[in-house]
Formats: sequence, C-alpha cells, structure tokens
Amino acid sequence: MKRAYILLLFIVSQSFAQVEDEKRLKEIYTAALTQGKSYGWLNYLSNQIGGRLSGSIQAQQAVDYTKMQMDSLGLDSVWLQPVMVPKWVRGTPEFAYLETAPGVTSNVPICALGGSVPTDSRGIKANVVEVKSLEELKVLGREKIEGKIVFFNRPMDPSLINTFEAYSGSVDQRRNGAAEAGKYGAIGVIVRSMNLRQDDYPHAGSMEYGDTPLDQRIPAAAISTNGANFLSTTLKLVPDTKFYFKQNCKQFDDVKSFNVIGEIKGSTHPDEIMVVGGHLDSWDLGDGSHDDGAGCVQSMEVLRIMKAIGYKPKRTIRAVLFMNEENGLRGGNKYAEIAKNKNENHVFGLESDSGGFTPRGFSFDASDANLQQVKSWATLFEPYSIHMFVKGYAGADINPLKHTEMVLAGLRPDSQRYFDHHHAENDTFEHVNRRELELGAAAMASLVYLFDKYGVVSSSEK
Amino acid sequence: MKRAYILLLFIVSQSFAQVEDEKRLKEIYTAALTQGKSYGWLNYLSNQIGGRLSGSIQAQQAVDYTKMQMDSLGLDSVWLQPVMVPKWVRGTPEFAYLETAPGVTSNVPICALGGSVPTDSRGIKANVVEVKSLEELKVLGREKIEGKIVFFNRPMDPSLINTFEAYSGSVDQRRNGAAEAGKYGAIGVIVRSMNLRQDDYPHAGSMEYGDTPLDQRIPAAAISTNGANFLSTTLKLVPDTKFYFKQNCKQFDDVKSFNVIGEIKGSTHPDEIMVVGGHLDSWDLGDGSHDDGAGCVQSMEVLRIMKAIGYKPKRTIRAVLFMNEENGLRGGNKYAEIAKNKNENHVFGLESDSGGFTPRGFSFDASDANLQQVKSWATLFEPYSIHMFVKGYAGADINPLKHTEMVLAGLRPDSQRYFDHHHAENDTFEHVNRRELELGAAAMASLVYLFDKYGVVSSSEK
Repeated sequence: MKRAYILLLFIVSQSFAQVEDEKRLKEIYTAALTQGKSYGWLNYLSNQIGGRLSGSIQAQQAVDYTKMQMDSLGLDSVWLQPVMVPKWVRGTPEFAYLETAPGVTSNVPICALGGSVPTDSRGIKANVVEVKSLEELKVLGREKIEGKIVFFNRPMDPSLINTFEAYSGSVDQRRNGAAEAGKYGAIGVIVRSMNLRQDDYPHAGSMEYGDTPLDQRIPAAAISTNGANFLSTTLKLVPDTKFYFKQNCKQFDDVKSFNVIGEIKGSTHPDEIMVVGGHLDSWDLGDGSHDDGAGCVQSMEVLRIMKAIGYKPKRTIRAVLFMNEENGLRGGNKYAEIAKNKNENHVFGLESDSGGFTPRGFSFDASDANLQQVKSWATLFEPYSIHMFVKGYAGADINPLKHTEMVLAGLRPDSQRYFDHHHAENDTFEHVNRRELELGAAAMASLVYLFDKYGVVSSSEK
Repeated sequence: MKRAYILLLFIVSQSFAQVEDEKRLKEIYTAALTQGKSYGWLNYLSNQIGGRLSGSIQAQQAVDYTKMQMDSLGLDSVWLQPVMVPKWVRGTPEFAYLETAPGVTSNVPICALGGSVPTDSRGIKANVVEVKSLEELKVLGREKIEGKIVFFNRPMDPSLINTFEAYSGSVDQRRNGAAEAGKYGAIGVIVRSMNLRQDDYPHAGSMEYGDTPLDQRIPAAAISTNGANFLSTTLKLVPDTKFYFKQNCKQFDDVKSFNVIGEIKGSTHPDEIMVVGGHLDSWDLGDGSHDDGAGCVQSMEVLRIMKAIGYKPKRTIRAVLFMNEENGLRGGNKYAEIAKNKNENHVFGLESDSGGFTPRGFSFDASDANLQQVKSWATLFEPYSIHMFVKGYAGADINPLKHTEMVLAGLRPDSQRYFDHHHAENDTFEHVNRRELELGAAAMASLVYLFDKYGVVSSSEK
C-alpha cells in the first residue's frame, strides 16, 4: 500500500514536471517569436558591420558591438577573452579568364581560397589538367601535371539529403588540393566551389599547405559552379585551353582579437558550466549572416530569453562568441585552454554553426545514456517540430572542450539552402528568415533549460 | 514446425519488401534531385507566363504549357477537362492614402481583395474605425460604423509554430470583413495583410459577400503590414484621420477554362485511381511560384519520376492541375462531379498547396487505420527527414472527392516562410529553392508508390 502511494506520488510529480516543462518551453518559444532580439542584432552585424574576417576592423567592430549588446542584457558578467588570430587579407579583386586561342578569352568568377599565397603580380597562365579527386593526381603523375594548373571539379553529390554530407564528400579538394597538386609540380589550383546550385558565386573557405615549404606553395582559388562547368566544357572542346588567374592575397603576422563571453551565474551549481556559442568571425565576401552571425545572435538570445522568462538557472550559462573559427580555430582552442587552466567544469556545450534555418533537431557528441536522456524529452519538442536527435559531431568551436563527462550538442537546422550561401557573396541578411532564426534560438534555449533543470546524466546527477 | 517455417517465410518476405521499398525510395529521391524537371517547369510558369488568375490569358497559357509538357512525358493519356470559371480582374493599380489634415497625406500600399467590388471612380474617403475582430462590430454598432471605413487589424499570431494555424486565426477578417461591416453601414473595409513579416507588400486573397445584395456590397482592400501599423499609430495620434482608397476591379461573366490531367494507367487495378495535384491558377500580384506553381510541377514530377525509375503502378495515377482554387474552387468541384458521374473509384488523393519548401511530412484526412498504415512506413521516410504524419485537412481541390473509403493527404512543407509570400507580389520564382521543391516531389512520389504497392487498407485491400 505504501509502495503504491509512493509510486503514485512519483507519477504525480513526474506529470507535474512534464506540465511545468511544457509551460517553460511555450514561454521560451513565445519570448523568441514575439520579442526576439536576434534578428535585430543580426541586422546590425550584417548590414552595419559586414563580413568579419579574423584580424579585420570589422571583426573588432563585431567584438565591440556584441559586448555592448550583452552588457545591456543584465547578465552577471560580460568579458572579452584575448586571443591571437591569423590575419589573411584578400587584397584587390581576383581576376581569371580562359584563353582558347591567343587573345580569345572568357572571364570566369573566382576568389582566392583562405590562406592561399598570391600569384605572381602579373598573374599566372598555364594549361589545365581537370581531375575529380586527389587520388587522380597520383595516376596522372608529375609528367602530366608539372607546369600546369590543376582544376579540381568533383561536384557535391546532389543525391545526398543532408547537404553537410555532400560537403564533407567534396571539401578535401579545397582543403588539400594545392598541397597535393604542388607535389607533382602544378603551379596553381582552381577548385569547383562547394555549392549545390548552378550560379556565378565563387565560394571561399580555408585551405592548408600542411608541411609544404613556404617557397613551394602554389596559389589556390575557387571558381563558381557555372564557371567550373564552363571550364570543363571548354577543355573538352579545346584541350589546349589556357587558364589565367591573378590574386594578391597576403598573410600578415597574427593580431590580437577576442572571444566575447556573457554569463548568467548558476544558483545552486555555479561551478557547472553550460556553454552556448557560435563564431563571430566570417569570410569576407558576404556579410556572414548564416555563417555564423546567426549562431552568435542565437547564443546571445538564449541568455536574453532566460532573463525574459524569469528563469534562474541552477548551473552557470555562458554565451561564447568565438573568434576565428573559419581560418584557425584559435578562439575555440583558447577558450578550452583557459577553461582547463582554471579547472573549470564544463558539463554541456551547444553550438550553432549550420545556418539560421528552421531547426530540425540536434546532433550529440555524447554517450548513449545522454542521447537517451534527450530522447526522453522528445514529446516536449514535438509541438515545435524538433524531431532529430542523432549522434554526431557537435561543432568545431566547442570540440576542444570535449571530455568524457560532458555533453556536446550542435543545432541542426534544415540544410537544403546552406551551401547556396556558405562562404559566398550571397551569405547576406536578406537570406535569413526572422522566424526560422528565432525558432533556432528557442530550440537552443529549450535544450539548455532542460539540461540545466535535470543535469547531464553522465556527470553530476547520474 | 510448419508454422515456424511459414512464420520465417513471412519474416523473410517482409524484410525483402522493406529492402525493396528502401531501394525504390532511394531511386525516387535520386531521380528527383539529380534529373528533376520540376524546377525548370516552374521557371517557365513563373518567368515566361507569370501570375495566372482564373480567366486570364496567363491561366490559358499555363494550361497549354503544362499539357504540352505532360504530353512529352510518355504518359498513357493527357487531357483537358473543361470548367467554367469566374473572371475577376484587378484593373489599374489601386491607390490609397491617409489624410491627417486637409492636404496632409501619406500614401500606403493596398490591393483590392479578390472578388471585391470597385470603389466609386473618384475613390472613397472617410473616417476610420479600427477593430480587431468581426465581433467588435457588434459592440460598436451602426452608430459608430455607419459612413466609415472599417480597418480590420488583428495580426496573425506570431507565437504559433505552424503558420497555417496563425493564418486560420486571422483570415475571417479578410474573408467576411466586408460582408459583416456592410451590415452596420460601413462604406469600405481595409484589412491587415495575412503576413507574419513587417513589410510593404499588400497580400491579396479572396473575400465573400455571402447573401449581401449586389447594391449593398462595399469595396475591400488589403493593406501591407507596415501600412497597417502606420495607419493604427496615426489613428492613435490623430483620431480624425481620413482614409482614401480607389480601386476599379471588376467581375466579368464566367469563362471557359480547364483542369489539366495526365495519367499512367494501373497494370492490375486500373479502376482504382490515385490523384496527385496542385492548382494551376494563382493570384495576379506575383507569379504564383509557391502558390501553387510548386504543387503543379511537383505533381507532374511524380508521374515523370515513376516513368524515370521504370515503376509500373498497379493502380492508375493521375496528376491533376486544378483550375480556380483561389477564387471559386470550380476545378476541384468539376473534377469530383465528373468522377462521380463516371462512377470512378478514387482511392487516394494527395495535394500539394502549401508552398515549395522543405517537406516535413503529410497530413491525412483518413481513418486511424490508414494513419497507422502510413506510420508503419515511418522508417522508410526517416532518411529523408519526413517525420510528420498527422491527422488533418488534406487540401481544397481534392476535398470534394472525399468519401469514407478514401485516403486524402496533403504535403506539409516547412511553413515558416510561406506567408511572407502568400498572394503577394513577392511570391516569385527566386524564393523557391530547387532542392526544397524537388524533395517535396520525391516525398509525394514515395507516398504514391507505397499506397500503390500496398493499397489503401480501408478500401480494396483491407
């Protein structure tokens, strides 16, 4: 009888908890959708500041602006965390053309890849070898590559539903193409943009020379998907086509920059830290609205929502706007380094760096037990159409914090449009829908609320 | 022993079926994403033809074009089904302003609501009564309304996650505002656009006078959301503000138009008909890309995909492009009337009329048994992020077909952006993402394939 009574009490308290959680999530979503600040913040970052490449004036303006905005939220503390970042600049606009016969030229849109060396100041012109993979270089060998420009032209696979998988399946060409082609004597590389659309935008992004000595590094540029198709067709018709390109990008010494951090102190477990973040730097061609202005303003909005609904977290919640995700990850690494030095106990990390589109769910870099914990909340998320709770990579900036007792999560928005804009001139504010952005912030706040309330099963409260 | 053997056989055959279905869905999605034709068709409908209001030249061009395209798909038959449709035309651009003092005016963007009568040729000018609901008219009474323009200004509720719910919660103002306000002696109505964004686009849409005698009908127009806020603020500051508007829209006699129908004959149950459709007409301000060019080209694409993957349906599959959904539903009604007269056995209907956005699932106007049948296919749809299988309204054009032995389904795309464009000047091709459109067609083809293969449990094969 007593046991039945206890069971009943348990059931009643469980259902009270469920009702309370439903109410909280409703409050969170309503706060996001009716008085949200993320869209206005993003408007400023995008349209008053613009692209925020690490080490640029704009990156510093973004640091100042977001700190000022977080200062206005009534948080317990807001501070800047210094970090040295690489400074690479694009220089004057790049220029490229195909030459099918002496003087018969067609211009094509290109952009230097981040980290690339410049061309000779007069540009370089050479015959082209088109390949679909790094492996093909081996088959062709030095004989067929030396003195030429290698054109990497493997498209993202359109049949994959998750466009990030299609990206992962192609991005080795951009990242390692120059280092690999250089080994066979190529004098430059042109890489098909990581874009599922056919259009005229070249897409930037970082590349790496690995251990290639400074004097053996060859310039690398991205070509728009239309340009890539045009080049490929031309090469079939006129195999002797020459490609010319000129870029005067430059790597400078590292400069000082900052992660921007805002914090609400936990009421009962202040030493348990939950981080929610995005990256403040962006590429320079667009204004970085989706990548990753969205993640930054959503992270700030999580803190604003907690205040707005009067929720006092048990654990400490930090919004961290990381600097230099795009071409160095110095901010993410610095944050983790300092956390380690200070013996801080990070129990949960949530990153938004996949665009400001309608959220579909979260990926979790966590134990099965943690994933089960999240899935037990599925009915709470159902009214908001958040249904994807999958194991997977969480995010680059929070990854350095990773330890076994911690849950890392990544917001997973709808991915269909992301690579239309990623690193390109059209990653701009008008391509962000206010409600989609706000729903992402609300989904993030909801997950933070639930982990704060119930704790991370694998750590303190297991 | 024998029973165990039969059970084993059953399990093996079930798992064979599962593998075959997985393979088919993969083929369907790949066909849609790698050789899809829907986007090209929509480009033509939107950019070469444009808005396709019932009875317009453009509507006829769309009939001709889509018939020609279906003719090219190698279907078993393609035909036009005649239907008389209303012909309402907007006339010259509408014009409106606020007058806060004699001669002190501010223009605001409006558009006549579909079906509205014109104003006097000099326009009408009067004081304004702002209300938030039809019910408020009763409270105010004839005394406060007579001779005035009633301004309906209840916004769509931004806190609702499904924007169609927000639409349903506000659209009575547009639909019945003029008929109701007319009863109290109002001389015109201005309705806040059904739009969750703040912008300058007035949104069209149909309105009804019910049994209001012809000579007592008052003109109705929509005002943009920015315009509505401006008007509301102005009325607070200057209650005596006058509103002027002029429109010369006109209702003509009905004209002949067509539903466009393409069909693949079923191999074993040709008498069981599965319909997949959208509506070919649209409003006239934009080019009707989302509403509902998308649904038309997706429906055509379902047939194309079946041919492309070499699937021979057991049942007859028809793509029906309905005419006049927007302001009469004559096409949907005519199709059902003829089906009834011919004693046709429609077992399944699927409509796409919620925009060409990333599909999230389907709503089913069907029995619980049918919903269970669909949910048993959930794992097949999981790789494609189709997760919503809910009971609910399927669609206006297939609704007249409804009978108890039939399953009606509606494609449910992500709804966040739909009402940014709905019935407005910015419902245009560039706001449709190719992959999102194609994923919708693939989801539709997958559902059609499964219902074709397994039958509709509540009808022939239960």
